[in-house]
Amino acid sequence: IQRTHLSHNMAKEVASYTDVANQIIKLVLSGSAQKRSYERLSNFTDAIGNRVSGSHNLELAIAYMYNAMSQDGLDVHLEPVKVPHWVRGEEGAEMVLPRPKTLAMLGLGSSVGTPPEGIEAEVVVVSSFEDLKSRGANVSGRIVVFNQPFVSYGETVAYRAFGASEAAKLGAVAALIRSVTPVSINSPHTGVQDYQEGVRRIPAACITVEDAQLMARMAARGQRVVVRLNMGAKTLPDADSFNTVAEIRGWQHPEQVVVLSGHLDSWDVGQGAMDDGGGAIISWEALSVIKDLGLRPRRTLRAVLWTAEEQGGVGAQQYYQRHKANISNFDLVMESDLGTFAPVALQFTGSPAAQKVMQEVVQLLAPLNTTRLEPHGEGTDIGPWMQAGVPGASLHVEDDRYFWFHHSEGDTMSVQSPGAMDRCSALWAVVAYVVADLQDMLPR
Amino acid sequence: IQRTHLSHNMAKEVASYTDVANQIIKLVLSGSAQKRSYERLSNFTDAIGNRVSGSHNLELAIAYMYNAMSQDGLDVHLEPVKVPHWVRGEEGAEMVLPRPKTLAMLGLGSSVGTPPEGIEAEVVVVSSFEDLKSRGANVSGRIVVFNQPFVSYGETVAYRAFGASEAAKLGAVAALIRSVTPVSINSPHTGVQDYQEGVRRIPAACITVEDAQLMARMAARGQRVVVRLNMGAKTLPDADSFNTVAEIRGWQHPEQVVVLSGHLDSWDVGQGAMDDGGGAIISWEALSVIKDLGLRPRRTLRAVLWTAEEQGGVGAQQYYQRHKANISNFDLVMESDLGTFAPVALQFTGSPAAQKVMQEVVQLLAPLNTTRLEPHGEGTDIGPWMQAGVPGASLHVEDDRYFWFHHSEGDTMSVQSPGAMDRCSALWAVVAYVVADLQDMLPR
Ligand SMILES: [Zn+2]
Ligand SMILES: [Zn+2]
Repeated sequence: IQRTHLSHNMAKEVASYTDVANQIIKLVLSGSAQKRSYERLSNFTDAIGNRVSGSHNLELAIAYMYNAMSQDGLDVHLEPVKVPHWVRGEEGAEMVLPRPKTLAMLGLGSSVGTPPEGIEAEVVVVSSFEDLKSRGANVSGRIVVFNQPFVSYGETVAYRAFGASEAAKLGAVAALIRSVTPVSINSPHTGVQDYQEGVRRIPAACITVEDAQLMARMAARGQRVVVRLNMGAKTLPDADSFNTVAEIRGWQHPEQVVVLSGHLDSWDVGQGAMDDGGGAIISWEALSVIKDLGLRPRRTLRAVLWTAEEQGGVGAQQYYQRHKANISNFDLVMESDLGTFAPVALQFTGSPAAQKVMQEVVQLLAPLNTTRLEPHGEGTDIGPWMQAGVPGASLHVEDDRYFWFHHSEGDTMSVQSPGAMDRCSALWAVVAYVVADLQDMLPR
Repeated sequence: IQRTHLSHNMAKEVASYTDVANQIIKLVLSGSAQKRSYERLSNFTDAIGNRVSGSHNLELAIAYMYNAMSQDGLDVHLEPVKVPHWVRGEEGAEMVLPRPKTLAMLGLGSSVGTPPEGIEAEVVVVSSFEDLKSRGANVSGRIVVFNQPFVSYGETVAYRAFGASEAAKLGAVAALIRSVTPVSINSPHTGVQDYQEGVRRIPAACITVEDAQLMARMAARGQRVVVRLNMGAKTLPDADSFNTVAEIRGWQHPEQVVVLSGHLDSWDVGQGAMDDGGGAIISWEALSVIKDLGLRPRRTLRAVLWTAEEQGGVGAQQYYQRHKANISNFDLVMESDLGTFAPVALQFTGSPAAQKVMQEVVQLLAPLNTTRLEPHGEGTDIGPWMQAGVPGASLHVEDDRYFWFHHSEGDTMSVQSPGAMDRCSALWAVVAYVVADLQDMLPR
């Protein structure tokens, strides 16, 4: 009975935010903040372009956001992070036999380069790690082409991540991995790869679905396929970078925080508009909207624009190390890193009691038609907090096409729409504000 | 009553082909010809690659098909054609201001090149021909970027075709045209363009949807956008080429013909698998299937693999000039040039009486679930015959994605499927065989 009573009070408390939620949504969907998320994202990514870890562009991006959010009237500061500094250099690949053909390619993050004269070798095409192992003796001295089918990003990305070392164990001289995407217009997709300790480091690049399939057909016919690969990639000493942090300080419990986040770095192709400019911008925008309405919650709202996510959540890891002593004050960590297309639902991980609260909170999103709370809120950058028990939320959007563009030259403003971004920002603002303003922190 | 009686007889006559149609379909869908269309297309396009008018690859392609169809036991001959010989040369474009960015591009067929040092000029972005005209005074000395929205290929291709001359009339120094496609992964699409007589010839290239939209946003902000364009394109003297013709001679009226056709040339990107290797291959395959079954119709079945379609139906025009004196013997002209994806219907243009016959013929396609006869059979290569009154048929396929890949590096075997091609070949073979074997030619 006590529990039911509490629940009832909680539901009533959350429901009391209906008016403020409606105000937020109205300001974003049809008020002065309409289309502002898209404008901010396009102003930012058109001006800077892509911004890979360690690059001058990433420095420019951090300075840009520091200035923009400061001018917006938020409390902004930078927190230093040491980040990997991999540079692509000049690169290219061509099939030499059975006929000459340029192969569209992108070296993979952390890959070593080739010798200056390049690597020219016969190709062995495999369709899986098992297939690779079955070729055992035929791999030595060869370039391994991984032509794995696309199953899902989560499953198939293993080839991009571990293909080079698995091939190197059998003596391969380089690895070319079919891009991890369900749809291709001869478009290569980059991303990070991981060398295994104690295994020789060989150059690794992604090629297109089309070229991987072409070489697979040729090899299946018994044709000898030879490829020349040139990569000027190298890893420089770690660089200085920053997580960019903007706040609206809570009036009652300023030490308690709701984190809204996205990462500011991207790959060195496209504009990094989708991955993850959009997530960074809506995290800023949510604070702007709350400020524009003259609102100030009990707890602190903190937008964190992570650095070096693409290198393995580097900025977020260092942030966690720096702030984990304070973990009891982290109310909710939110991350948007799967696109800012039309929102579908809020994904949430937390205790059953916390889920009950969030179940009420998402009812406030009825005007956005996104009142569904889904399990499994997750994300590279909020992962450390969630693993330590902090409730986590992430944005589920209409992401059918996300991996078509992910880590490719196609990740540009052209995939974004103002209306969808407005809806993401409104959702983000309502959830963050209400959670930050409730009497109690979310139950762990 | 006489007419009804004739119709009845005709319907009965066509229905008498049900068994043979079923045999054809069975041979292709589950018999010895299963997957052969795809295999032939992949063997061909994997070996040769793309094959633009005037290129050595196109010569190789013609020799390949001459040999392959001869070895298949068909009567094959070549008919000479003079074709345009445009070469792309080295090319590239980059945005210089407001920030440096490589622009993915493809020069357009028939374009002149730039001076060796390239052209560097400020950009004016327009969204339509009307918009261009309204910029009148601001176009001189500029590079015009056409950022027209994609409406449909038929409508929007006007910008690719005529953009350069329209811009040149106002003093532009080059034209960059947004690729004509509904979907882009930063993928440029080439194609032919037409200079207008008496207008200065300026370099013309297509850029990606993404980059056209980027420059449009920058220009809308009042930013000065400067682009450098380098194109080594030039037009050499006309080259020697051939239409490739394979036949099964009719036993009763060998002088009367049903033409099945697709074009063998392509653009100089991708593999030309979809445009139009597939159409060429199913036209060959239809004859193979009929031969494999030991069938020989009353009239001649003639597969024509056109050359230099992409330059404006050049091979087909010269074929028409050479054979038009014989027009009364052309029973039906068939063309497949919108992909060999899963077939949906047969498109047909002819007199009402001919439509009645074809309405019955497509009933034989019930096992393929393609018994719909649609109006407006058409195609660049059969156009001259149809305009002169010969009945024409074309293949309507599930072409939703056709223009995603059209004239781009994405036109490869990866967009083809063996099952869909089998169904196209079976349809093609049934229609051609039955029309060629009916007592009477199709009524004009
Ligand atoms: Zn990301
Ligand atoms: Zn075509």
